[in-house]
Amino acid sequence: MEEQILGFIAGILTTVAVLPQLVKSWMTKKVMDISPFMFVLLLGGVGLWVIYGIIKNDYPIILTNGISFLLNSSMLLLMLLYKSKD
Amino acid sequence: MEEQILGFIAGILTTVAVLPQLVKSWMTKKVMDISPFMFVLLLGGVGLWVIYGIIKNDYPIILTNGISFLLNSSMLLLMLLYKSKD
Repeated sequence: MEEQILGFIAGILTTVAVLPQLVKSWMTKKVMDISPFMFVLLLGGVGLWVIYGIIKNDYPIILTNGISFLLNSSMLLLMLLYKSKD
Repeated sequence: MEEQILGFIAGILTTVAVLPQLVKSWMTKKVMDISPFMFVLLLGGVGLWVIYGIIKNDYPIILTNGISFLLNSSMLLLMLLYKSKD
């Protein structure tokens, strides 16, 4: 049982990790120092994890990686938006 | 078997995702626009995944998250190094 709680907390931390960056970029409108390829790779990875979770019918994997996919694509959108203004 | 390959590729993508950011920050020495809290949360998450993997004796989880832990701590170190120079 303990390891399930551990896995749940680990999943939440890695899922919401991009939030502070989203807030900072939203506030500062500055993204010059950030690599868009990091978020492209992350999107590719969590996207595949969602497909993996669907095949295995594993809801925690689908949910955590689905949220990650939304947060990381929002970050990529912000970068496209503000990159042109840098 | 296919989903194992899918999970393996997904794991590699999410593990190496921070590499382009590491290279960019190393080259530009500029980290002002990056949120250190993103990497603190990531470190916490992948650190817990390593402990989770050890408890469950799951080597793929230990390996991918162990590498992530090293890459993300290197990124945090770079940020501490260059932050003082910004």
